[in-house]
Amino acid sequence: MSGAVRVAAGVPSERAVTLKHGAGGRAMRRLIEETLTTGYDTAGESAPAWAIGLTALDDGAAIPVGDGWLVVTTDAHVIHPIVFPGGDIGRLAICGTVNDLAMMGATEPLGLTCSIILEDGFSRAELERIHRSMVAACREAGTTVVTGDTKVMGRGEIDGIAITTTGVGLTRAIVPDAGLRVGDCLVVTGTIGDHGIALMAKRHGLAADDVLCSDVAPVNGLVRAALASADGAIVAMKDPTRGGVASCLHEMAGKSSVAITIHEPVVPIRPAVRSAAELLGLDPLQIANEGKAIMGVRGGETAVARVLASLRAHPLGRDAAVIGECVPGESGRVVLDTGFGRRLVAEVDGDPLPRIC
Amino acid sequence: MSGAVRVAAGVPSERAVTLKHGAGGRAMRRLIEETLTTGYDTAGESAPAWAIGLTALDDGAAIPVGDGWLVVTTDAHVIHPIVFPGGDIGRLAICGTVNDLAMMGATEPLGLTCSIILEDGFSRAELERIHRSMVAACREAGTTVVTGDTKVMGRGEIDGIAITTTGVGLTRAIVPDAGLRVGDCLVVTGTIGDHGIALMAKRHGLAADDVLCSDVAPVNGLVRAALASADGAIVAMKDPTRGGVASCLHEMAGKSSVAITIHEPVVPIRPAVRSAAELLGLDPLQIANEGKAIMGVRGGETAVARVLASLRAHPLGRDAAVIGECVPGESGRVVLDTGFGRRLVAEVDGDPLPRIC
Repeated sequence: MSGAVRVAAGVPSERAVTLKHGAGGRAMRRLIEETLTTGYDTAGESAPAWAIGLTALDDGAAIPVGDGWLVVTTDAHVIHPIVFPGGDIGRLAICGTVNDLAMMGATEPLGLTCSIILEDGFSRAELERIHRSMVAACREAGTTVVTGDTKVMGRGEIDGIAITTTGVGLTRAIVPDAGLRVGDCLVVTGTIGDHGIALMAKRHGLAADDVLCSDVAPVNGLVRAALASADGAIVAMKDPTRGGVASCLHEMAGKSSVAITIHEPVVPIRPAVRSAAELLGLDPLQIANEGKAIMGVRGGETAVARVLASLRAHPLGRDAAVIGECVPGESGRVVLDTGFGRRLVAEVDGDPLPRIC
Repeated sequence: MSGAVRVAAGVPSERAVTLKHGAGGRAMRRLIEETLTTGYDTAGESAPAWAIGLTALDDGAAIPVGDGWLVVTTDAHVIHPIVFPGGDIGRLAICGTVNDLAMMGATEPLGLTCSIILEDGFSRAELERIHRSMVAACREAGTTVVTGDTKVMGRGEIDGIAITTTGVGLTRAIVPDAGLRVGDCLVVTGTIGDHGIALMAKRHGLAADDVLCSDVAPVNGLVRAALASADGAIVAMKDPTRGGVASCLHEMAGKSSVAITIHEPVVPIRPAVRSAAELLGLDPLQIANEGKAIMGVRGGETAVARVLASLRAHPLGRDAAVIGECVPGESGRVVLDTGFGRRLVAEVDGDPLPRIC
């Protein structure tokens, strides 16, 4: 029915939205910067006072309320298949938004909203299962859904179900993704690539469900513990979801005007994930994670040791590791030191993994 | 691709979600009550303190913050066609959420989030047009989009575009939808049925675009003026969207444990809307509105006159009228007095208008 606004095959791709615009990389960022964030009255008298929002392109917005910040963040979830090893679309929808709040420093959500679009004919039993999964994930994160909306589209008008969650939380201090300086260390809170590889393996029938498993989890408790131990040493934070660690580091480095060097041998990757990625021709650095954070830590070895210790003491942070550091150089440049040589880390652009979250 | 969880034709409808579950009436309320609001930890120690939320099934949730309330509300928008007389999906997505905030008393939104799901191949030009429409609606409402998300689904996996907006706002006093008492008057802020009839007429090629026009508009300014003039006399408020005035009144009456009588001759309906509704076999009371509010007003003629005067002084409230009152009787019962007799007003259930918002 959307044929009237669909661009015919063969038309230059810049005139149509394509799958790569949803891949979390450069194409998506350009679409957002060139179209979706333009024109809003963010400084005029009709705009309420808010500080970090659309133009900062952080994981969410921060609005000054009282003597702190109200953090607001939103995500649509269209993952396929809706049930996968380690989770389902319901768990993902809760964790994705809880984690985005946590990345801004709001580790105790005030609540989430949940807006569900269903296809006519969708199974009630499946909906109930997804709902139970959302309830369980909320309990893990110590939060709840406070309001919602339900829409139904006709058969063939949506592929089953899509869930958009929005989270609100308060924090005294915002942790931006753009807070890096030369000399800061980069810490990842655990193994990378698990979510995306589990999804791809499931789609291709590559492995038994218990070998490759999504890492989808609410990391707000983990982040809260790290922030409490860090005493201000965590100066930047972002979760490496769509586009993986590569896109995440590109964005953090570019916004912070630093370059980053990553040391490949110390990047934590499960052997099964590494093998599956090789088989699928994928770079684990470009693969989505749903239960990890990347933190910029300042203050030298003592500070880093303190943050690592608090992360590793948490069940979700046992594999936390320092993977690199911020260095002088071209803003936004990310280099991988393999131990044998150095190569540029490419940001995802033309080779997306559609519907990975 | 969702075939695995789609219930086959012929299976009892209670085992599958159907279009009527998105129609704003009884079936939808049952789905929400029986499934989507169950299980959350809203009182336990892991839950943050919040007062009006899922179990109250109001237009949004209210969370105590400082000496006031943080109101949060969310809506998915899947309207078809995406451009219609009087608006488009972008304008609708902003107004729908601004209005839900206003219905709770939060008439100055802190900001909105915008989560867009696009179909691979969707026209960039059309997306830009929708975006401009969102920007314009935000300016009308005195707010802005503060953060967002973009996902792309494959061709045939979603019909063009769906937009979920969430709004946050602060208010000193919540106006509930359940605040009615016997004796309160019911005021509607303007003509009814315009949005749904314009949509249906467009789909059926019934009329020129300028004859039947959606009323989609941000009513927060109108509501703010009315609340300021009312001095506490507006005791309940709700917007008659999906399911129309009928569902809206049923819900307000049921939650307030009162009955309601509506006087048909004084219900404001445009002649063209009345004619088109007759032609289509639809009851204007059951048709969606996107720029109207129903208010319960207490305090007798003086209070009602004050509220009406402030509404009629606003461009969006010129046709405001008293349409009925709360009476003793069976809780949730809504009766229409036609001037010649009385009939029960049915709530929408089995005859939905799919994708009306």
